[in-house]
Amino acid sequence: MDIAVLTIGDELLNGDQPDTNTAAIARSLGEEALVIREAACVRDREEEIAAALNRLAASHQAVIVTGGLGPTSDDRTARSAAKALGVPLSLDPTALRQIRERFQSWGRPMHARDEKQALLPARAAVLANPLGVAPGFHLRHPKGADLFFLPGVPAEMHAMLVGSVLPHLLAQHPRRPETAMQRLTVFGLAEPEVENRLEQAALPEKVSIAYTVEFPLVKVRLRAEGDAAQQLIDRAEVAARRALAEYLVALGDETLAAATARLLTTAGLTVALAESCTGGLIAKLLTDQPGASEFFERGAVTYANSAKTGWLKVPPPLLAKSGAVSAECARAMARGIRRAANTDLGLAVTGIAGPAGGSAEKPVGTVFLALATAEGEKVDEFLWRGDRGQIRLRSACTALDWLRREAIAHLTRNLDLD
Amino acid sequence: MDIAVLTIGDELLNGDQPDTNTAAIARSLGEEALVIREAACVRDREEEIAAALNRLAASHQAVIVTGGLGPTSDDRTARSAAKALGVPLSLDPTALRQIRERFQSWGRPMHARDEKQALLPARAAVLANPLGVAPGFHLRHPKGADLFFLPGVPAEMHAMLVGSVLPHLLAQHPRRPETAMQRLTVFGLAEPEVENRLEQAALPEKVSIAYTVEFPLVKVRLRAEGDAAQQLIDRAEVAARRALAEYLVALGDETLAAATARLLTTAGLTVALAESCTGGLIAKLLTDQPGASEFFERGAVTYANSAKTGWLKVPPPLLAKSGAVSAECARAMARGIRRAANTDLGLAVTGIAGPAGGSAEKPVGTVFLALATAEGEKVDEFLWRGDRGQIRLRSACTALDWLRREAIAHLTRNLDLD
Repeated sequence: MDIAVLTIGDELLNGDQPDTNTAAIARSLGEEALVIREAACVRDREEEIAAALNRLAASHQAVIVTGGLGPTSDDRTARSAAKALGVPLSLDPTALRQIRERFQSWGRPMHARDEKQALLPARAAVLANPLGVAPGFHLRHPKGADLFFLPGVPAEMHAMLVGSVLPHLLAQHPRRPETAMQRLTVFGLAEPEVENRLEQAALPEKVSIAYTVEFPLVKVRLRAEGDAAQQLIDRAEVAARRALAEYLVALGDETLAAATARLLTTAGLTVALAESCTGGLIAKLLTDQPGASEFFERGAVTYANSAKTGWLKVPPPLLAKSGAVSAECARAMARGIRRAANTDLGLAVTGIAGPAGGSAEKPVGTVFLALATAEGEKVDEFLWRGDRGQIRLRSACTALDWLRREAIAHLTRNLDLD
Repeated sequence: MDIAVLTIGDELLNGDQPDTNTAAIARSLGEEALVIREAACVRDREEEIAAALNRLAASHQAVIVTGGLGPTSDDRTARSAAKALGVPLSLDPTALRQIRERFQSWGRPMHARDEKQALLPARAAVLANPLGVAPGFHLRHPKGADLFFLPGVPAEMHAMLVGSVLPHLLAQHPRRPETAMQRLTVFGLAEPEVENRLEQAALPEKVSIAYTVEFPLVKVRLRAEGDAAQQLIDRAEVAARRALAEYLVALGDETLAAATARLLTTAGLTVALAESCTGGLIAKLLTDQPGASEFFERGAVTYANSAKTGWLKVPPPLLAKSGAVSAECARAMARGIRRAANTDLGLAVTGIAGPAGGSAEKPVGTVFLALATAEGEKVDEFLWRGDRGQIRLRSACTALDWLRREAIAHLTRNLDLD
């Protein structure tokens, strides 16, 4: 199955807006073992759109097109498709009815120019838009390619891709049952080290491995085709788990924060946070997860020292002697937040995210983490490279990873007790 | 100037990784009034890369290529370029020296396969990579187009685009002095309302206006060409400011959070936050800004009621009677955090971000904001549509906007006093 994607819009090429549709389509198709061979992006010009359509239709079995279906004068995709195929535009009654119904359901008046969105190339089959106004459509190119036209609004595009385009593609080209994949998220190892470990782990030879870095995480995709693809992936996953050990933080689509939230909930551990340099980022990542109130009690973003001494009971002499960015302060913050919140775990971060505030002794990137439990406190010091955003994000991910590991250790101890 | 972009990599088409380079190049070029006419993306296949290079070189004056320059076996761009131009590959001594120096500067051993990155098409001019290993290169296609090859790693790509490619393009095609632009960020008005206001504002006719939605913000780009472009933009900006009034939250590249931080600093106002449903997001957005400690004292992420009663002194009877999601609770939280932190402003958010927790009386999306000042408290209730992430983000942006407006009001009052 040879598929191309064509995105249309001046805003994608003049720097106003990034194209996210190509990546979203690639991901949805990839989940179904359908691979895009080529992607292209052109401006809102009839002749350029028509030329791209004809070029891609000549060398692919399907072309998924997004953008340029709206009501304004720079929406020229339907007209360009008609031109490419040499057919007239005509007002499609099905499309017009769908547009009317959409405005009725919203209780909003329909303008004359909205009717333009029902002007489709002759013989187009309308694709319903469940979320917005502009209908999509399907055309068969004279050279045999299936052309699917979808709106550029990402949510509408995605709903119609999943609802209309994928079923069509899969019906024509049933998913090969012999394709399987798994995604691994790794934290705490650099990409070359992940590669080394997986090379030495001797995964089944037929399993292809792809690496991508999404700072500060390394993502690994295992893919197998052919006979017994799922068994190959199962075996590869077992080998990869052993090789990556505690650095493997999530499987599939799960994020590090979601895995941390899930494990804390399962372990029945409650958490409170004291954040200085991360400024609420750890709390934000944990409370992004639905149901975070199961384990998250409270967080303190203690920028000023008065907040550290007031809420966290960090002794002023300690601050005066060791400074706010110190192992001693981190330890006191973790202990203080755990006591204030009366939780199982208290986690604290203090450091210098920059760009200002560094010194020879404590340069930008110096970060202390501390975790308080019923057994006492663990503290560690880090020195991270990167800009303010990177230092904050790496600190936050390390904090999540500490909580994740603590939850696993807790679950393991309980197993041992059983 | 007719420019194309070609991105290369299986991972961009199989769903493993989104292509961010095309958008980054479009933005950098757009700032210099250079516009991309066409973008394409192909897999790591020699024949497909070579075909795309020859096709784009035949119809554009410059082609910027990213990806496939690394040391691994699936990095095939240099070989494909040699094939497209019909020239041999050879070990480039300049490139090899740069690679060696990079490893030396990092104090890391260089592997044999790293030398492969110095295998360039004959007559290529090396482009230094200031951040990574793989050198880029420049080639002149027989049909006259300039071909620039850059690594796919976004930071390296961008540094070399700005350092090597843009100067070359601008030297050959000096920036037209008669192009000017301005970007406006709008919050609190829906896109159609922004359009209506700017249509009625009668901006100079020659100024083109483009709208994009970056939830929950609306971005507007004004662009003018021809004689007196900057004067046209200046006049358009004045008219747009008047039409958008207090909904215009930032100009140029500044974000809503950065504008809020800047205005709070200028006004000399200090802030403390009490966040429930936003879970630290507001604190995170404010402390993303360097120098946030100038105005930000502390934040409380009070998920559990014990945190609201303990740190914020919300009276337990109030919680029992009105509930944690109520105007009364928001007001008490704002007052409590302002007192606890001894700041000029205390801002509080409490609400139901979902997906669970809603009721007939207080459905998901119900959010209360409160701002405490020396004069008292202001409270407002909102009912927002969308998912958990959208409800949280819109709440956080509204909170930032309240702080921004309060800082402006404070500065205005001081002006009046002078």
